[in-house]
Amino acid sequence: MDLAPLIDHTFLKPAADKAAIATLCAEAKAHGFASVCVNPAEVAAAARALAGSGVRVCTVVGFPLGASTTRTKCFEAADAIQAGADELDLVVNQRLLKFAPAACEAELLQWVRTCRTFRSDVTLKLILECCNLTKAEIVRGCKIAQRVGFDFVKTSTGFGAGGATVEDVSLLRRTVGPEMGVKAAGGIRDRATAEAMVAAGATRLGSSAGVAIVQKRRCPRKR
Amino acid sequence: MDLAPLIDHTFLKPAADKAAIATLCAEAKAHGFASVCVNPAEVAAAARALAGSGVRVCTVVGFPLGASTTRTKCFEAADAIQAGADELDLVVNQRLLKFAPAACEAELLQWVRTCRTFRSDVTLKLILECCNLTKAEIVRGCKIAQRVGFDFVKTSTGFGAGGATVEDVSLLRRTVGPEMGVKAAGGIRDRATAEAMVAAGATRLGSSAGVAIVQKRRCPRKR
Repeated sequence: MDLAPLIDHTFLKPAADKAAIATLCAEAKAHGFASVCVNPAEVAAAARALAGSGVRVCTVVGFPLGASTTRTKCFEAADAIQAGADELDLVVNQRLLKFAPAACEAELLQWVRTCRTFRSDVTLKLILECCNLTKAEIVRGCKIAQRVGFDFVKTSTGFGAGGATVEDVSLLRRTVGPEMGVKAAGGIRDRATAEAMVAAGATRLGSSAGVAIVQKRRCPRKR
Repeated sequence: MDLAPLIDHTFLKPAADKAAIATLCAEAKAHGFASVCVNPAEVAAAARALAGSGVRVCTVVGFPLGASTTRTKCFEAADAIQAGADELDLVVNQRLLKFAPAACEAELLQWVRTCRTFRSDVTLKLILECCNLTKAEIVRGCKIAQRVGFDFVKTSTGFGAGGATVEDVSLLRRTVGPEMGVKAAGGIRDRATAEAMVAAGATRLGSSAGVAIVQKRRCPRKR
């Protein structure tokens, strides 16, 4: 099974060697990954490096806490699209999802509409940060994501207390049905884990170990 | 020694019980803390809860990775000031600080000017995330912060690989001289640690354990 087209090749660490983003983009082109996923400040550089390659540029919004304001989340998304982002992974406001679901849905609806105003075919993923949520809250988040028009639900930021689990991926898939995307992210560092996520229903994999995964090695680096 | 007026009573976790921010504000008023430090989405609620109390509202910008764009960092700051923030703790872009210091300084200068346009007396702190930096990079960050007009330099986000150390606080103080503020944050959970930070030169303490610190208990909660 060729996993490369499912991989968002990810580098979100705030400090790194100077060539980190250039290396990430070169690896993504060489292996045919779906996208590179970088912080917003790196989007313009990644878009230049990947122009014409077919590899998409993914970035994160309200990341990793999901606790910026609706206005800032909308501004950050528009800014990223204008800088060349093809895909945006937004972190849900977990306090709203838990305690004010109507306000959570209103925020997400406004955010999706703002993004699609700037670019109708941008790919939008909602990060639920499952490690902080109950099963009922995960289901609630999935249903909101589906109603307001996200393309994917995603398990984790990779910066929380836990990453993707087969159980959570399976719950996301069962909840959203067969059509919507499910992205597993956080702690996926080897081929076996990646395959288990796909078997559980993932259609995209966020990982900093994409090269090791396609080469069937285990990557010792922490995400 | 009364530490209460030095404490930014901090709650930045993305998921928490419903009453977390109200409790934080009530504790800050009861103990006379300098401020509460909350995520941007909570600023308006904190400002309402603290109106007329003398306790200031602090929030974070580009937090905790420091890797949003200059435009987004400026927007987020203006948005927070308009929502009632009195103090802003901005995370430095560590890749710029390491590899493009002139661009780092330009970003910070633009950010400080934007903030002061919206409110001239807003208190501005630059978070250096010392655990990711060399000593030379920490010194460089301090000097930039001083040149562009920050009020404080701050050791850590509390979400990185390490928190405040006596060594780093001492380096910040030696570098910025006696007039500028130094905020120690990350892992300060008891009175002895708080006092050590003050002895090393800290004039502000960011902690989620402010109540335990003033009551001379050790707080078991993780920040």
